[in-house]
Amino acid sequence: MNRKTKGDYAMLDIFKQIPLYRFLQYCQEESRLPRTILDCGAGGSQPPLSLFRTYGYETNGVEFDPKQLELANEYARHKAQLLHIQQGDMRHLDFASESMGFVYSYNSVFHMRKADVQQSVSEMKRILMPGGLMFVNFLTVNDSRCGQGRDLGKHEHEQFDDSVPVIHSYYEPGEPDLLFSDMEILYKEDRVLERIYEGEKIRQGFVDYIVKKADA
Amino acid sequence: MNRKTKGDYAMLDIFKQIPLYRFLQYCQEESRLPRTILDCGAGGSQPPLSLFRTYGYETNGVEFDPKQLELANEYARHKAQLLHIQQGDMRHLDFASESMGFVYSYNSVFHMRKADVQQSVSEMKRILMPGGLMFVNFLTVNDSRCGQGRDLGKHEHEQFDDSVPVIHSYYEPGEPDLLFSDMEILYKEDRVLERIYEGEKIRQGFVDYIVKKADA
Repeated sequence: MNRKTKGDYAMLDIFKQIPLYRFLQYCQEESRLPRTILDCGAGGSQPPLSLFRTYGYETNGVEFDPKQLELANEYARHKAQLLHIQQGDMRHLDFASESMGFVYSYNSVFHMRKADVQQSVSEMKRILMPGGLMFVNFLTVNDSRCGQGRDLGKHEHEQFDDSVPVIHSYYEPGEPDLLFSDMEILYKEDRVLERIYEGEKIRQGFVDYIVKKADA
Repeated sequence: MNRKTKGDYAMLDIFKQIPLYRFLQYCQEESRLPRTILDCGAGGSQPPLSLFRTYGYETNGVEFDPKQLELANEYARHKAQLLHIQQGDMRHLDFASESMGFVYSYNSVFHMRKADVQQSVSEMKRILMPGGLMFVNFLTVNDSRCGQGRDLGKHEHEQFDDSVPVIHSYYEPGEPDLLFSDMEILYKEDRVLERIYEGEKIRQGFVDYIVKKADA
């Protein structure tokens, strides 16, 4: 396979993280910002940073889980893309303040307790340039799994995914507004979706934010 | 501009009709169906059929409004894509029964009264092959404009967009289920979004469906 064919193939992927197409659209409209972007929770078998790379962004990603990190890097090698995804903890980002035009975390922050989510969002704000854009989404109390598992308080629950213990923190749809009180909310979407997953109908609840850091 | 550059440019567009990326993803997974697709309400300055064309689909579209039709065809000429968008009425589709693998109508059907929506959905079902997929979305009563304008009954309202009279029909989030009682609902998303539009914060409510026609 030559380089051109590889590039075309990357372009033709449809990324399953659909709301990030909207974020990309908002990013594309911010013509004064450098095309630098950080993904917090960047791992998995189809890393969405690849979409941003295809559109010319310089990408960086941090991923806590070594297995998810390896899957993402395998994908990047296969697509011959330099995505720069490394092991890291979004509660302590190893990037300079105001160093990125854009930052996002998709389906990721809610795997921590709410205090850790707050710290992670603070870190994302710190590394974002003035005028920069951020996407973050949250699980909501409309999710059918909300209430299941040991309750740690504030709709934080200890649950199991494929026998592996995980934290899921659920938010009232307006609750994350408080995390962005120093930013401009450009877009917010409260959504409840029903789909077939492994033969069963499931109901999921999310609220997605696109927010902008104040200009200097 | 040579042909290759034109093709790349088309590929690099981000289509504002974000939920259609998800529909495209579902379509791509149906490997046994022919790549033929019809858009009902296909006009406008960025016709999403272009996205499907880029992914190799044979496209057809109908558009009621000659002005929107012209905008779409201008786009297609600019991108050097053959999209086959024609003037037409989705209540009476001029296509053979079971002739399309896929059909969709995005942000369109709710500009008619509910009886006409029902007739249009019936037509879309008719031209769809057994096992084929359909995307349709609806305005919901959660939209901030629901209740405004002359009430024609059943949350059907006569309103004005830029001084032009239009019908908007609003649905309870579960109400369109009835239109798909003979189909399998693969995906359904009830969403309320807030965004800045022309300097004002607006609230919109939609429910999106991806449904499958029963196999023969």
